[in-house]
Amino acid sequence: MIGGPIYDRVALIGLGHIASSMFWAMKRRGLVGHVSGYARSDETRETARRIGLCDTVCDSLEDAVTGADLIVLAVPVGAMGPVAEAIAPYLKSGATVTDVGSVKKDVIAKVAPHIPDNVHFIPGHPMAGTEHSGPESGFATLFDNRWCLLVPLEGSDPEALEQLRRFWEGLGAHVDEMDADHHDLVLAVVSHTPHLIAYTMVGVADDLRRVTENEVIKYSATGFRDFTRIAASDPTMWRDVFLTNKEATLEILGRFTEELFALQRAIRKGDGAHLHDYFTRTRAIRRGIIEAGQDTEAPDFGRVKVER
Amino acid sequence: MIGGPIYDRVALIGLGHIASSMFWAMKRRGLVGHVSGYARSDETRETARRIGLCDTVCDSLEDAVTGADLIVLAVPVGAMGPVAEAIAPYLKSGATVTDVGSVKKDVIAKVAPHIPDNVHFIPGHPMAGTEHSGPESGFATLFDNRWCLLVPLEGSDPEALEQLRRFWEGLGAHVDEMDADHHDLVLAVVSHTPHLIAYTMVGVADDLRRVTENEVIKYSATGFRDFTRIAASDPTMWRDVFLTNKEATLEILGRFTEELFALQRAIRKGDGAHLHDYFTRTRAIRRGIIEAGQDTEAPDFGRVKVER
Repeated sequence: MIGGPIYDRVALIGLGHIASSMFWAMKRRGLVGHVSGYARSDETRETARRIGLCDTVCDSLEDAVTGADLIVLAVPVGAMGPVAEAIAPYLKSGATVTDVGSVKKDVIAKVAPHIPDNVHFIPGHPMAGTEHSGPESGFATLFDNRWCLLVPLEGSDPEALEQLRRFWEGLGAHVDEMDADHHDLVLAVVSHTPHLIAYTMVGVADDLRRVTENEVIKYSATGFRDFTRIAASDPTMWRDVFLTNKEATLEILGRFTEELFALQRAIRKGDGAHLHDYFTRTRAIRRGIIEAGQDTEAPDFGRVKVER
Repeated sequence: MIGGPIYDRVALIGLGHIASSMFWAMKRRGLVGHVSGYARSDETRETARRIGLCDTVCDSLEDAVTGADLIVLAVPVGAMGPVAEAIAPYLKSGATVTDVGSVKKDVIAKVAPHIPDNVHFIPGHPMAGTEHSGPESGFATLFDNRWCLLVPLEGSDPEALEQLRRFWEGLGAHVDEMDADHHDLVLAVVSHTPHLIAYTMVGVADDLRRVTENEVIKYSATGFRDFTRIAASDPTMWRDVFLTNKEATLEILGRFTEELFALQRAIRKGDGAHLHDYFTRTRAIRRGIIEAGQDTEAPDFGRVKVER
């Protein structure tokens, strides 16, 4: 790294999908000096040691954060507050605490009160991930060409913010800044509501006694299987997201059911023009996403081998 | 092909995604003798001639079906009836008419009355496709390891049915038989309702003035982009599906909103146990789909390049 590491010592708290990907991405470019890690479960710490995840895997929060210049909270949103409280006494003066939670208002409310005055707290959210979870699911390229949102609080230190921005750029991400309210609304639209809907659709299929599970599985390539991917995401993470981004999720769900009822009414009334118009409009967004490099244009996400 | 072609002459009516894929799949294995094709639009016929789609591209339905042993109706469900009526006078005695529509009860009601007594009508539905459409989007491998449902009517000729089954197996598919009522219900679950929900979610995101289109596109990798793929499917095809599989779709939509309201209530009440339980259950179905070879287990449908 030209100009030396961005941080000398980084502590990863929680060693799941995001933290493990961050570790491999840091190592890929020699972005930092030393990485310590901590996970609550013995099993996760053992796995981390076995696969070489982190330079040092610590058995206590105290050991992990002591001396760290950057502390990354990478635990489910519901655990952020208790973890912040537990590490507070051991934080080095001038250090930066950040997080990777999918919800920002709640994390700020729960974490900020515990952060000492001589420590910077800059909330963040790398918008990347797969349906896999756990310490073995991480990989160095996860953040490449994805966006990371930083949500600085009023009076944030500009230098600490700039340093964290360079860190995420070094991990491969583009960085934007946003306020917490807007973040939580945007995420309710692009992530939280879609996940809830996918979980619901998969649950309905599973519940239906008149259609067997075997049929649902065999014939899933007709659309259904796309929903099962995000409905295979980590249950604890997602429970916490919905419990903590309640307001925005309920607002977008309200909009969703309103639109769904309008389409349902068009089906019942046989209003083909309404349906055709609606289905035409939605194609443009897909094109925008492909042009922005945020998805593949290969048919079926590239799952099929295309051969003439 | 050992034992000669399965059909000497095949006519494809409609030259979109499914018919063009069928053509390339037939050619891949020399499955049939000669393939004629017809499409209503001049532009589609010109494209077909340019790319070598079909041995003969005909300018009339009469020319396309005359002398054909198998006639495949591959037009939107709403056009099946009129096309059947138009080709009826030119069908060869002993020929088989089949279709590839996503709805079966309505297609049978609209097509069967036009089929002469000396012609076999065996409805079908290959459950494969991508979000792409049109004559240039087809490819030979589309049906490999996918399922094709045949929906024989009472008193179907067993030999004609067996021949059609071998044809679809030759195209790469597995073949199952099912009655029309059950087909339409199963498809409402695995395909029609998921598509409507995806269209709705993409429409909501597009409509929301407080979240910009630019934000929706940039941050779509958090879940939303998965919905945009199926919401980019052909509007005419999908309008017709919902207009003709009204009953089953409305039934499954009713189940879906019931479940969604239960989850919404759990969010409002802060019932984390209910959410966690629901989100855990849905993981099993994903595993089943991967084990059945109906989806990839690569993270993110294999869109990400996984590197340590």
